[in-house]
Amino acid sequence: MQVYKAPLRDMRFALHELFADDGYGNLAAFDEFTPDLLDAVLEEAAKMAQDLLLPLNISGDVEGCQFDNGVVRTPAGFKHAYEQFCQGGWAALANDPQWGGQGLPETLNKLVEEMLCSANLSFSAYPGLTHGATLALETHGSDELKAKYLPNLISGKWGGTMCLTEPHAGSDLGILRTQAKADSDGTYRVSGTKIFISAGDQDLTENIIHLVLARLPDAPPGVKGISMFLVPKYLVDEENRIGARNGAFAMRLEHKMGMRGAATCEMRFDDARGWLVGEAHRGLFAMFTMMNQERLSVGIQGLGIIEAAYQSATAYAKERLQGRSLSGTPQPGQPAEPIIVHPDVRRMLMTMRVYAEGCRALGVWTARALDASEHSTDPEVKERATDFMALMTPIVKALFTDLGSEAASLAIQTYGGHGYIVDSGVEQFARDVRITQIYEGTNGIQALDLVGRKLPANGGRNLRPLFHAISCLLEDLSQETEPQIGSMRDSLSEAFQALRTATDEVMRAGAQDPEEAAAAASDYLRMAGLVALGFCFLKSAAIAHKRIASGTDEADFYKAKIISARFFNDRILPQVFANLRAIKGGKQSTMALDAAAF
Amino acid sequence: MQVYKAPLRDMRFALHELFADDGYGNLAAFDEFTPDLLDAVLEEAAKMAQDLLLPLNISGDVEGCQFDNGVVRTPAGFKHAYEQFCQGGWAALANDPQWGGQGLPETLNKLVEEMLCSANLSFSAYPGLTHGATLALETHGSDELKAKYLPNLISGKWGGTMCLTEPHAGSDLGILRTQAKADSDGTYRVSGTKIFISAGDQDLTENIIHLVLARLPDAPPGVKGISMFLVPKYLVDEENRIGARNGAFAMRLEHKMGMRGAATCEMRFDDARGWLVGEAHRGLFAMFTMMNQERLSVGIQGLGIIEAAYQSATAYAKERLQGRSLSGTPQPGQPAEPIIVHPDVRRMLMTMRVYAEGCRALGVWTARALDASEHSTDPEVKERATDFMALMTPIVKALFTDLGSEAASLAIQTYGGHGYIVDSGVEQFARDVRITQIYEGTNGIQALDLVGRKLPANGGRNLRPLFHAISCLLEDLSQETEPQIGSMRDSLSEAFQALRTATDEVMRAGAQDPEEAAAAASDYLRMAGLVALGFCFLKSAAIAHKRIASGTDEADFYKAKIISARFFNDRILPQVFANLRAIKGGKQSTMALDAAAF
Repeated sequence: MQVYKAPLRDMRFALHELFADDGYGNLAAFDEFTPDLLDAVLEEAAKMAQDLLLPLNISGDVEGCQFDNGVVRTPAGFKHAYEQFCQGGWAALANDPQWGGQGLPETLNKLVEEMLCSANLSFSAYPGLTHGATLALETHGSDELKAKYLPNLISGKWGGTMCLTEPHAGSDLGILRTQAKADSDGTYRVSGTKIFISAGDQDLTENIIHLVLARLPDAPPGVKGISMFLVPKYLVDEENRIGARNGAFAMRLEHKMGMRGAATCEMRFDDARGWLVGEAHRGLFAMFTMMNQERLSVGIQGLGIIEAAYQSATAYAKERLQGRSLSGTPQPGQPAEPIIVHPDVRRMLMTMRVYAEGCRALGVWTARALDASEHSTDPEVKERATDFMALMTPIVKALFTDLGSEAASLAIQTYGGHGYIVDSGVEQFARDVRITQIYEGTNGIQALDLVGRKLPANGGRNLRPLFHAISCLLEDLSQETEPQIGSMRDSLSEAFQALRTATDEVMRAGAQDPEEAAAAASDYLRMAGLVALGFCFLKSAAIAHKRIASGTDEADFYKAKIISARFFNDRILPQVFANLRAIKGGKQSTMALDAAAF
Repeated sequence: MQVYKAPLRDMRFALHELFADDGYGNLAAFDEFTPDLLDAVLEEAAKMAQDLLLPLNISGDVEGCQFDNGVVRTPAGFKHAYEQFCQGGWAALANDPQWGGQGLPETLNKLVEEMLCSANLSFSAYPGLTHGATLALETHGSDELKAKYLPNLISGKWGGTMCLTEPHAGSDLGILRTQAKADSDGTYRVSGTKIFISAGDQDLTENIIHLVLARLPDAPPGVKGISMFLVPKYLVDEENRIGARNGAFAMRLEHKMGMRGAATCEMRFDDARGWLVGEAHRGLFAMFTMMNQERLSVGIQGLGIIEAAYQSATAYAKERLQGRSLSGTPQPGQPAEPIIVHPDVRRMLMTMRVYAEGCRALGVWTARALDASEHSTDPEVKERATDFMALMTPIVKALFTDLGSEAASLAIQTYGGHGYIVDSGVEQFARDVRITQIYEGTNGIQALDLVGRKLPANGGRNLRPLFHAISCLLEDLSQETEPQIGSMRDSLSEAFQALRTATDEVMRAGAQDPEEAAAAASDYLRMAGLVALGFCFLKSAAIAHKRIASGTDEADFYKAKIISARFFNDRILPQVFANLRAIKGGKQSTMALDAAAF
């Protein structure tokens, strides 16, 4: 049973209430978008996700994509849904109005993305990849390329892809081999094989615009010799009409654990005509300028599955009758009670619930920084927002997707044996979400990015916005007498101290021996993520407490916020102390065994 | 790439060296089985698992079982393999020689089971279920039933099943509805629907003997009104020849997340002739007397997948070239180095490795207690062994299967994008192992069994063998001056103290309010399991240290043992401190939210 209603009230809480004082809001670029308008967009998005995409989630998984004679067919219903999606303007929500976008904040866009991913993760891949390609083109493309390709990409009429991985080159793009040669007319000829190309071919759009990483003949070896090329599936003439077929072919579809409605292709570029995007040899740089956003989006995919898993598990736990409450028999007429009465079931439901609420809050906070980093007119705010984004990107990507897998597994466990049956729809969440821990940089790569690049960059400055926000909140609440808030403040303070200790340890040891930092990286990322979530929960509880004290008419909502914060504080946050101990253990036992002895 | 070589050296270490002084050995019943003979059996079992079963693992998953006109077909090759398996005597390894078994220790049998599960978890279900049925019959069946059914079940000529679950009754068997009526000839007529019946129908054996839980007309409600019936697929005549078809039919196969080579059937019993096993209304008791063994076997399934995941991930990590070592460039001629050089990859490999070694050790220790509980002639040893078994059963079942899922996920992560592709063979591990956290009692049920039954039973006596063993080891090593052993001793001592504190907390709070114990149950089980693993590792390191000091010619093996122990000690064991904090948080935040607010 897959059920889903967009959690609009919690989204509005994260969007309007939780971070009102973070300094990333009130951007002139978004003046015209009133809170009411943003809420209305969320409501419409909810209908689209619930009514258009959710009904295709199971059928898309069962049917999968098909490969017939070089043509990829998406599952039944996807094409119609994609047309409706584009007609509704959902493809162009946050894009530049200059090219037909609606110019809405990325903060809002990320909440809409969450809904898409909850309802149908496979479907979300198609607009998601196109969005990624438009970002790269907007930032690095020539005016000519932008004018020619962006309007149709942004409207969704054409699809986009990112062609990075090769059979022997995944995390290590420096060794990729696809070649590009300059042609006499200023274009290039691209040849090589790419694998794991999401939406590499599909039947949703009349053309597909590939962004392909390749090497020019004079390229230096390694990552500094990679260039980015725009390679359309069909060439486009002067009047933007579809012309001849270009040498970019899907060779086969991968048979995957999940996300079976999303076409993952092996692509063959065979003397395909391409156009250079950005500077020669700077292709990886171009790809990485949009990687922050893409990685944030992958984190949001994890969040989407957490929410879907939570809702589906909750619906089942309220309905499935099994056993009796340990605290008496509230329903004595029934042979058994809903399993939600059992503490261990509630432990699972509350865990999923706080993962959803916490990740939503942290995702919105990070997206606010993304918007401020692009649109703030205050250089100090812009710098701070950019630093914060840089720090949070690997955390959001890895933490949310790890918790996504955990939540999907908890949903299966809540269903018991029924969760293992394909018809239940919940094992699909586990299969679908599993790739999010891998693509756009494995979570191990995220952890290395965090400790190896983001921490030491700018003399450690990236940490400041997070640490400063936590310190300010703790300071604000230092005189708080409400016992629950006070107790959570003390817990967060202790966890924050542990994170500072770990930070010192990782930076000190890592400066002497990078392997020390690398061996600590995954534990450190988890710690930093949990402390950031703990901050969001404490802030949320403090706001809820004030709202209740001042006589809100939504007391149930705010009381539930305090319960979620307490559960996170009492049952999840303590994990940071285990992470700190593991970090202090150092690299020795990790690295001691000779490779041949494994 | 699924690779598997049975870890014979480590199995011999667990079997002969690690627990030589635990008091559960030297059983007269097994006098004839010399260590050399046991080792020879392991070597033959390894060949069987590697050569006969492993090659059918991927094909069995891809093909799955088929249901045609009421007949279940197992995947190609399973029938032939099953014949070989039975001819080799593997079905009868630990059964009573009186009925054709070989009477080998369960300790050995569990190591063989580990190999089966590593090589082909789906295949292992068929002999596994039969083994379960023989245990129930051996213990509770009348002499007549035993003589009629046991020899063919034990030889594997006939298969067995356990029919417990109904659509509305899983964890809560008290509400099951299948009916049995006495017939005039002393037999019974059984009618009802059972679901999730592993091996409910198959084409491997000429007959299938179902053990079915059902209610007699005069049965009291709840778990005290359940009786067990033997219901053959084909009736068996006086000369043990197959006769008429009985009313026990597979209605359909479940389409499952994994274990697709194992037939999971919905069964319809339609006035089927059955024979009462054991006493009327005592069927659940009869089922549970063999449940300890079955749950231990499910734990071993988790271990089997851990080992398979570890080996497959290790093979890939040695071969896949990506990036360069942070500690220099040991292979300067290559464009990249094997990913095993990267600390975060090693973290994953070492985690799987210590899960495998630790669970193997703890599984062997528990199986030794099982053997001693059945065969010791010393009443004190028998009681202690029985207590230890009772305590460890839920821990082994839940911990090993949770770690099994985690290890399978780590194997996927080690493979990166390739791990998400079905062809890699590693995502199958994750799908296959997922059910082990659910069947034979969900891991949540195991945790409740631990805190609600096993801890308080006999005035808390069940804990003593574990706690006593840990105390003795710490005492033995109290003067140890070797720094690594000393440091691990101190860590285990601290973790043990945390477990004692948690035990007091759970028993105290649980005595006043059972929901407190239930809310703490999963954290407590994990803590107890990790401390027990920590004990095994410290013991193993201490033995290894002595062997090295006395000039062994297997220094590499013992040095690796110390490295594993350190990794577990430094990076995994610290999780118990997070569990303790979570337990101390109490039930409040878990139970506070109104069910309607979820």
